[in-house]
Amino acid sequence: MNKIPVYKRLLPFTDWLFHYKRENLTGDILAGVIVTIMLIPQSLAYAMLAGLPPEYGLYASIVPLFIYGLLGTSRTLSVGPVAVISLLTATALTPFAAPGSEEYIKLAMLLAAMTGVIQLVLGLIRGGFIASLLSHPVVAGFITGSSLLILVSQLKHILGVKAASGHLPYEAVTNLVQAARDTNLVTLGMGTLAIALLLFFRKPFRKLLQRIGLSENVAQIIARTGPALLVVAGMAAVALFSLDSSYGVKVVGEFPTGLPGLTLPSLDLPVIGSLAPAALAIVLAGYVESVSVGRSLGAKRRQTIEPNQELVALGAANVASGFTGGFPVTGGFSRSVVNFDAGANTGLASMITAVLIAVVTLSLAPLLKSLPQVVLAATVIVAVAGLINFKELLRLWKYSKGDGALMGLTILSVLGLGVEIGIGVGVGASLLLYLARAGRPHMAVLGRVGESEHFRNIKRHEVTTYPGLLLLRVDENLFFANTRNIEDRLLEYVAEQADLKHIVLSFNSVNYVDSSGLESLEALIVRLRDAGVTLHLAEVKGPVMDRFDKVGLTEHLAPGQVFLSTHRAVVALRGDSKPAEPARAA
Amino acid sequence: MNKIPVYKRLLPFTDWLFHYKRENLTGDILAGVIVTIMLIPQSLAYAMLAGLPPEYGLYASIVPLFIYGLLGTSRTLSVGPVAVISLLTATALTPFAAPGSEEYIKLAMLLAAMTGVIQLVLGLIRGGFIASLLSHPVVAGFITGSSLLILVSQLKHILGVKAASGHLPYEAVTNLVQAARDTNLVTLGMGTLAIALLLFFRKPFRKLLQRIGLSENVAQIIARTGPALLVVAGMAAVALFSLDSSYGVKVVGEFPTGLPGLTLPSLDLPVIGSLAPAALAIVLAGYVESVSVGRSLGAKRRQTIEPNQELVALGAANVASGFTGGFPVTGGFSRSVVNFDAGANTGLASMITAVLIAVVTLSLAPLLKSLPQVVLAATVIVAVAGLINFKELLRLWKYSKGDGALMGLTILSVLGLGVEIGIGVGVGASLLLYLARAGRPHMAVLGRVGESEHFRNIKRHEVTTYPGLLLLRVDENLFFANTRNIEDRLLEYVAEQADLKHIVLSFNSVNYVDSSGLESLEALIVRLRDAGVTLHLAEVKGPVMDRFDKVGLTEHLAPGQVFLSTHRAVVALRGDSKPAEPARAA
Repeated sequence: MNKIPVYKRLLPFTDWLFHYKRENLTGDILAGVIVTIMLIPQSLAYAMLAGLPPEYGLYASIVPLFIYGLLGTSRTLSVGPVAVISLLTATALTPFAAPGSEEYIKLAMLLAAMTGVIQLVLGLIRGGFIASLLSHPVVAGFITGSSLLILVSQLKHILGVKAASGHLPYEAVTNLVQAARDTNLVTLGMGTLAIALLLFFRKPFRKLLQRIGLSENVAQIIARTGPALLVVAGMAAVALFSLDSSYGVKVVGEFPTGLPGLTLPSLDLPVIGSLAPAALAIVLAGYVESVSVGRSLGAKRRQTIEPNQELVALGAANVASGFTGGFPVTGGFSRSVVNFDAGANTGLASMITAVLIAVVTLSLAPLLKSLPQVVLAATVIVAVAGLINFKELLRLWKYSKGDGALMGLTILSVLGLGVEIGIGVGVGASLLLYLARAGRPHMAVLGRVGESEHFRNIKRHEVTTYPGLLLLRVDENLFFANTRNIEDRLLEYVAEQADLKHIVLSFNSVNYVDSSGLESLEALIVRLRDAGVTLHLAEVKGPVMDRFDKVGLTEHLAPGQVFLSTHRAVVALRGDSKPAEPARAA
Repeated sequence: MNKIPVYKRLLPFTDWLFHYKRENLTGDILAGVIVTIMLIPQSLAYAMLAGLPPEYGLYASIVPLFIYGLLGTSRTLSVGPVAVISLLTATALTPFAAPGSEEYIKLAMLLAAMTGVIQLVLGLIRGGFIASLLSHPVVAGFITGSSLLILVSQLKHILGVKAASGHLPYEAVTNLVQAARDTNLVTLGMGTLAIALLLFFRKPFRKLLQRIGLSENVAQIIARTGPALLVVAGMAAVALFSLDSSYGVKVVGEFPTGLPGLTLPSLDLPVIGSLAPAALAIVLAGYVESVSVGRSLGAKRRQTIEPNQELVALGAANVASGFTGGFPVTGGFSRSVVNFDAGANTGLASMITAVLIAVVTLSLAPLLKSLPQVVLAATVIVAVAGLINFKELLRLWKYSKGDGALMGLTILSVLGLGVEIGIGVGVGASLLLYLARAGRPHMAVLGRVGESEHFRNIKRHEVTTYPGLLLLRVDENLFFANTRNIEDRLLEYVAEQADLKHIVLSFNSVNYVDSSGLESLEALIVRLRDAGVTLHLAEVKGPVMDRFDKVGLTEHLAPGQVFLSTHRAVVALRGDSKPAEPARAA
């Protein structure tokens, strides 16, 4: 990607906007409209999940989408509020302010701005690789764990009761159980019906549409409008039967018409410090979700995305969200798929969605006041229920016990200690697991194959070894996690073989030696010399040798030598008089 | 080491104590005596550095040494108080209690017990590999940074003034500068003289002894008694000239004669929580120092140490320290070298030192009351001054800019934010640096060498490539840090080459694929298929294939195949009709 000029890299819209092709317009408009229909109920529901008044979901779906459309490298990704990020927002802010309060809203904007700044900086310094911290078992465990939490958090709306979320996840459950005796049966009935209908829309309805002759693609798009239809039906039911005033069904209520103004998030340093871990968790989780969706969709049209520029685009979108009354956003999976399937060709589709959401916010807001909360909760529940995946736990366990345990640990940490700490535990555990693996590299004792110049593992081949001479191949780069293990194993050989005079390390598969590896080699040279053994190297690759030369390792090695091949080392070191011996395992 | 029965592994003294060889006795006794002479001033000085009354240094040098002598796998390592661990102790405890107070002493014992329990548990679950978290640049930076801090902390004793250490390191400096106007000139004179004498003992005196015919070894041992002689001289000077009462030279003062009783450290959970990071830092730093000394000395006699059992032995020693009025201990560098050079053959030498220190505590304590603090401070300063190593910073920078920057960052963090956070920053930065490196693995596009079955990097060799067929070799294990990078690079090839139909990944140098790698391969199969490209694998190693089979990757791959060799893949995929093309760079 380095051949592209900087302005093109940082402003990807220069690639399509100034010579926009007319044939792309129909697809972009259609996709923009359909995504809007899908996004309205989603944005309201996720605002509720994030502990914010519903209109903030709409606010977060205007400017951020417009900006991502200009700066994103994925042409079909649909940015906006998503479930997991909304949960992270709620968890981060609840300790500092009452959900829905003025203070809470300000903090949500601050969190969005912080997330955005971190993403922008990471993207500009090309630090996107830190997303690698989230290994697959951690992501899978995090998604299953947080989906369970989200599901539990929405049950109170289905029951029509009030229940505090509590500091630790289990408190939400006990609070809910206590509150359950006040269940509003009309609300519960509506909730159950809404969930049933949404599940019907999700699959059976789509199949039905296909059976009556619609293409899979069209059927999928129509089915996705289900939640919006449900919202309309819910509002109609409330209006017709006065469900709110007569039966106590909670509705969204009045909210201000008009677009959000440009507001500065408050800059309170201690608060910024306390929100930092949450912002970091949102940066990582949001980026991983967004990029993996972007990559999948890109591949279908042989387009690539540029991960660091994605960070820049998401960062700009989040900063904008922080200044225009929103909360943290990222690329969402289901919306992006719909955008793609509906024919989005360029970022223009996202920009059209942004404009339409602004129009809705200005014109339709009064209608939304009678929208029942239980319908939004049902939308969230059906969305996250599909993300709970215990099958993956079993599959990972089958593939690798360590990775399975890692996913299990992440789920338990998220459920028991909350989402932020859960991610932290998962990341820490995967690094330790990796170090435990990489810390014990494969090493083979070599012997000569017949009279050839080939040397192979004595455990697998019929080979000849030489008394007093140990040939060892290290099958891993030398770096801080494995140097001590390699040292110990070498010193064990020395302790076990009293007649040992020379050790030749074959660096045939060593591509990199970090300074810990260098230090370890220098210590080994001295330690082996103290034990009367000389260390030699063989088959050292060019770049590795260049570094060694910078610090004079060769002089340090003397009388040990660097041989071009293991064969030359053997010829030089066995002497002519010494006889070859049959192979033996060390 | 697995062939050894468990009791032998956990109780290494069974190896030498029950059939103790008479010829080892002279060496063990001599070493025990000489180490005692060296340890007395050191233990007093390090107790002072740790913020404890001097007698606690002696207490920490009795039972822990005895226990390490029994349980340690290094026969010559000398355990006891060391400079860096004492500094870590002081930093950890100062926020909670006034140095020297009852409360402070209790906390020091608690910290020792916590350190011990963590080490014991880590050793028993064979988790010693977590010491790999400390890469060489971090250790080197930490030692230089903390030595500077120790040096500054002792200057107040040299000036004979009172100055608080402050929460952050820079405060110690400002406090010292303010206090400097009250400098006691007699104390300053004594301090300067003591430092000069100690420096003289360190090298010129040893050279002198060698010139008059003593062996290097004997000269070294005699020179090492310098600090003890200085202590005696200091006490004599104070007694003769009443330096304490007439000139205000601070002395150690009266301390209780008698051995410490068996005390339980207090179990206050919130305090334990707050001390945990310090305990962890002490575990890591203490273990790394100890094991690296043990390894060096072991090699000289072709003996090995067992890292996990070392953790058990250090853990038991620290728990004992916590229960017998001590503070955290570990294997010290200079003392162990003296122990070794003086002829220590078994753990008995340590046990003799322990008994002698107990005798000193019982009998000589009254003499020590007139010991001037400034002499102890001089001892500490000369000991740590030798550890400050900025040359290593330059050398690392020359070897690898990243590793040099890492050492510099660690020094600055230790100086600016304190030792614990400094270690944390260093560990975090080395993991990120490693991920940034490992996250971009080497990948080579392969072509056929002539009409042979060999395939080589097209950038380095004259080879033949085939249209529509991309042969790629990944030179790294597939794991969470690099999967996304590999995916992106593969998708870029696809985006660039419109005619691409098949990709063959050669797994020739892949020894391990973690579940993130598996997930990534599965995603790639789908994404490439969406782009009209089929993914194949070649040269998959046995253990990797076994795991793939457990989760049915082969079925997932279809119509892609797993080929035994790149050559077979080419024969199967290029078809007979297609002509070979000359090499070109991708």
